[in-house]
Amino acid sequence: MSASSIDLAVIPGDGIGPEVIAEALKVLEKAVAAEGVELKQTHYKLGAEHWLATGETLPDAVLADLRTRDAILFGAVGAAPGDTRIPSGIIEREMLLKLRFSLDHYVNLRPSKLYRTVGSPLANPGAIDFIVVREGTEGPYVGNGGTLRAGTPHEVATEVSLNTAHGVERVVRDAFRRASARERKHLTLVHKHNVLVFAGHLWKRTVEAVATEFPEVTHDYLHVDAATIFMVTDPSRFDVIVTDNLFGDILTDLAAAVTGGIGLAASGNINMDRTAPSMFEPVHGSAPDIAGQGKADPTAAILSAALLLDHLGYAAAARKIEAAVVADVEKRDGGARSTSAVGDAIAARL
Amino acid sequence: MSASSIDLAVIPGDGIGPEVIAEALKVLEKAVAAEGVELKQTHYKLGAEHWLATGETLPDAVLADLRTRDAILFGAVGAAPGDTRIPSGIIEREMLLKLRFSLDHYVNLRPSKLYRTVGSPLANPGAIDFIVVREGTEGPYVGNGGTLRAGTPHEVATEVSLNTAHGVERVVRDAFRRASARERKHLTLVHKHNVLVFAGHLWKRTVEAVATEFPEVTHDYLHVDAATIFMVTDPSRFDVIVTDNLFGDILTDLAAAVTGGIGLAASGNINMDRTAPSMFEPVHGSAPDIAGQGKADPTAAILSAALLLDHLGYAAAARKIEAAVVADVEKRDGGARSTSAVGDAIAARL
Ligand SMILES: CC(C)[C@H](C(=O)O)[C@@H](O)C(=O)O
Ligand SMILES: CC(C)[C@H](C(=O)O)[C@@H](O)C(=O)O
Repeated sequence: MSASSIDLAVIPGDGIGPEVIAEALKVLEKAVAAEGVELKQTHYKLGAEHWLATGETLPDAVLADLRTRDAILFGAVGAAPGDTRIPSGIIEREMLLKLRFSLDHYVNLRPSKLYRTVGSPLANPGAIDFIVVREGTEGPYVGNGGTLRAGTPHEVATEVSLNTAHGVERVVRDAFRRASARERKHLTLVHKHNVLVFAGHLWKRTVEAVATEFPEVTHDYLHVDAATIFMVTDPSRFDVIVTDNLFGDILTDLAAAVTGGIGLAASGNINMDRTAPSMFEPVHGSAPDIAGQGKADPTAAILSAALLLDHLGYAAAARKIEAAVVADVEKRDGGARSTSAVGDAIAARL
Repeated sequence: MSASSIDLAVIPGDGIGPEVIAEALKVLEKAVAAEGVELKQTHYKLGAEHWLATGETLPDAVLADLRTRDAILFGAVGAAPGDTRIPSGIIEREMLLKLRFSLDHYVNLRPSKLYRTVGSPLANPGAIDFIVVREGTEGPYVGNGGTLRAGTPHEVATEVSLNTAHGVERVVRDAFRRASARERKHLTLVHKHNVLVFAGHLWKRTVEAVATEFPEVTHDYLHVDAATIFMVTDPSRFDVIVTDNLFGDILTDLAAAVTGGIGLAASGNINMDRTAPSMFEPVHGSAPDIAGQGKADPTAAILSAALLLDHLGYAAAARKIEAAVVADVEKRDGGARSTSAVGDAIAARL
């Protein structure tokens, strides 16, 4: 995949999305220029603002165009909480989740690391450094369900979680591979198989089966409720967590919180088979309350750009960005810096 | 319901269950004796050990017998994690969940309070005092789902979450009632309606509708992922949380962790219509690793007995137990006391 140019799609989105993406691009441009790589950018207007202006979420032609790019850098989408003009969740489902599903982003990779200078809400966090490999294309997120007799006393609403051997096995194997490449080589499956028997046993059996291919990796299992307890009492026990789409959503926000907040949490929505471009985005949302004020922390977006480079085969450039971020973070003292000041400082360290 | 005798069913269960229930009974007996109330006990052998000996989970005749009692005091069930003789989750589903569903325990009440002397894993926990009203009879816990082509590369596993207007409305109204009786009178609905549209909107519409009956109660909404963040960054914001069966499972374990551990977390599985006995149990499990050593903290079981008395209409006796627990907890200094020493100390304060 290492080529002399990157054909990048950029979806800045809403709220603080454009602000943090501007800084991520600043850092990305400098990092790839140093490698002699050309960065070709195509920006796409998508998100809540765009929907208000046009009624479009993700037109087929735009999706087709995105498919031709090497990777997607994504900011954040979503209207202000009180905005009743936009049907709730429509942008999330018909744009963000549609991208993850259409482009087969089955590895939703979310690293969690506590930096020395970053305050954790935990009194004794210990050394936190784990990754969550969240399944990204099935489970309770498939949108399968319905409502019968809506608005009556006899309403019934269903949600169907769909889980396939194909979908579970590929993400479990990816998680084992990542565990194998790490120092502690430990994998934890998180599910709730004592209650969600059918899906839970598929996950459990799959982990047992794939584990035989990775004898060097130890593995254990936690129910999701127990996992949230350990996330606050003993987060350093985790190395690689593999889990389903919904449990992964919950655990990664909690993990971001215990490692000092979602200002630092990066993520990749990765298609490991490279049949479509992968997408990289900060875990945080569009934060309409602080949008346009230059207050947003672009670090998560910048770290997402590093994950993007890694995925495209520019590991050295990715490591340089990460090192620049670490160097910057290590010098933070809690003083307020503007979004662009943080971007400038990290870019200057490259 | 205040009568001169209580016909109590006791299910001590496995592991530390019998040990903590012995202490809860010690306290309960003394508390009701002081009110001149007779406590009639019927003990039931149920749980993993009982299954190993007999192959029985919850026979129909036992369930029918339990139905005739005024209330159930429940310890904990579950085999040791490594025990492969028991099909995973069978006791949980065919005994514990079967009781909750058969006896229509639609209010799964779980209070969370941080005591001054109890260490929280949070550096600045603030004043934590909220209750979670978890739906107990539907949602993803209904056991509806299946597996197609199990064990093949074409396996598909489904889990169906069933949600009804009847089920959601009654628990939401109960949560509003509880919020109305509290000082802050605030209710937070936790769900994930941007993804789980069908169930999520039923919950959201129901909260909006029932809110009109309680103009004195303020209410807001949080996605479950955001709620876990606030649980560690700002838990004092919560007053009453109402949520579905699965999100409630996750949030209450997390809440127990931030308030110093599940040694203190009590719960009630309550049938507010009183068409069947309600069941009271510590949130913790059977903890096979410390069973039989007199190490388990019986406080959660004792507080569960207080919830039981409250439900049966003995509010004064319930308050006395709670006050005795608080007095005991306030004097804790982290030194180890045996299970029975804690029970004795709390009983002595009545
Ligand atoms: C916005 C929402 C649909 C999304 C999710 O639930 O996956 C977000 O919470 C995330 O974690 O990326
Ligand atoms: C044991 C298990 C089935 C149960 C649940 O998931 O409800 C437990 O975790 C709880 O919270 O009481």
